[in-house]
Amino acid sequence: MIPSQSRPIGVFDSGLGGLTVVKELNRVLPSEDIIYVGDTARVPYGSKSPQTIMRYSRQIAFFLLKKKVKAIVVACNTASALALKSLQSLRIPVMGVIDPGARAAVQTSNSLKIGVIGTTATMGSHAYRRAIQKNKSRAAVWETACPLFVPLVEEGWLHHAITRSVAAEYLRPLLKKKIDTLVLGCTHYPLLKKTIQNVVGPKINLIDSAQATAEYVSRTLLSAGLVNANRRRGKISLFVTDRPRSFSRLASQFLGGKARPAAELSLDNF
Amino acid sequence: MIPSQSRPIGVFDSGLGGLTVVKELNRVLPSEDIIYVGDTARVPYGSKSPQTIMRYSRQIAFFLLKKKVKAIVVACNTASALALKSLQSLRIPVMGVIDPGARAAVQTSNSLKIGVIGTTATMGSHAYRRAIQKNKSRAAVWETACPLFVPLVEEGWLHHAITRSVAAEYLRPLLKKKIDTLVLGCTHYPLLKKTIQNVVGPKINLIDSAQATAEYVSRTLLSAGLVNANRRRGKISLFVTDRPRSFSRLASQFLGGKARPAAELSLDNF
Repeated sequence: MIPSQSRPIGVFDSGLGGLTVVKELNRVLPSEDIIYVGDTARVPYGSKSPQTIMRYSRQIAFFLLKKKVKAIVVACNTASALALKSLQSLRIPVMGVIDPGARAAVQTSNSLKIGVIGTTATMGSHAYRRAIQKNKSRAAVWETACPLFVPLVEEGWLHHAITRSVAAEYLRPLLKKKIDTLVLGCTHYPLLKKTIQNVVGPKINLIDSAQATAEYVSRTLLSAGLVNANRRRGKISLFVTDRPRSFSRLASQFLGGKARPAAELSLDNF
Repeated sequence: MIPSQSRPIGVFDSGLGGLTVVKELNRVLPSEDIIYVGDTARVPYGSKSPQTIMRYSRQIAFFLLKKKVKAIVVACNTASALALKSLQSLRIPVMGVIDPGARAAVQTSNSLKIGVIGTTATMGSHAYRRAIQKNKSRAAVWETACPLFVPLVEEGWLHHAITRSVAAEYLRPLLKKKIDTLVLGCTHYPLLKKTIQNVVGPKINLIDSAQATAEYVSRTLLSAGLVNANRRRGKISLFVTDRPRSFSRLASQFLGGKARPAAELSLDNF
């Protein structure tokens, strides 16, 4: 039997966005092996129903369990908002991106006027509002869905004038509320960080939950005695349900060549 | 056994867009029963691989066969481009939207300089170019993917200034080619017809393949002896793989209350 410490960490997302979390995990815990699943055959999750998001998340979690992971990181805000509780009945630690992001927001905000942006499903769940107010009950939270941000990122229009106009339109109501902190509640959004910062101005802190999540995972593994004590470099293995080649190309740009080419994971495995 | 003529026509799309075809079918063939499947749990198809699009299309076609349809209309340009051939091995007529659209374009165009817009997958298949040049070998065809149009329609920004800017950006290369005809090669795009016409100017003819497809289906059923001769109003039944309630609301606006509420079709049926 493989000792628990040397088992990989499982990470999943609906597509590419969760690689922002993988990158941070690999920085904070460089010895850990990581198995990543991107559900590119059914992306996006953000416009789908809670039932469907739970179903897809459970299927991927069971695949990761078969791969003998020691913990699962739900590196997708939508799945964290809607499926985390149901996955936490598994016998290994299962962590999402929302609690770490909410904690980072509360620590950063002086006025406790906090804006959150994300997909329609994440915003509709109010998971961020609950997580922020669990940490600080008197925090004021405004949530706004930005459904065009993911397609704009996928189109590669990261710094395009149109993206700036879309951001201005979506963020106007939050700016009126005089927020001092804005949570990027979708793993795609860090790629729009410059454009968003430009629109909201330099005084508003942007919270990218990838970093906060990696640190939270590190603390959780430590206290559970699950950290890999080996000094070797961890391996990153990628599985996607569609288009492994184009995914590999983007992932390699994104992770600086640290991952092997993505393998195709047939939906028949689910 | 039910006589073939009185059986329903099966229609499917990745989501809502194919209802443009249902509406036209119901106008041209008011006595026909229609069973529509929208694959809202896996929408969109336009960014996915040919293999995945074929797999999903076959699954839906088999569901429709179990419902004893007499013919299948693939009311999705992406699935028509990539899965039609494989579905045409079934024992009933299977028709797509691309051939009728291509024929209408050739009949309309004087200069035979024809632009086509659609999803990344449809444009990548060059199915329109092939279909147009099969009808008129000397036609010049330029194809451009417009991946943000579907998300803009789903956001409801049909007449928004940002949508106009996006359209101007996508259509600029086609306008430079002096096209006189533009095929709307995605069932969502007719909803942007006014904005697109505004951008390209009044001299360019827009081809919406829904109408051409309905007429083609009518001719095909007639020549196969499959038209329903009853004088009663046909029934429209809707099935979707996710979010039946929000789908029903939109479908009822769209079809003017002619369809019953959508039923949920579990992916377990596939």
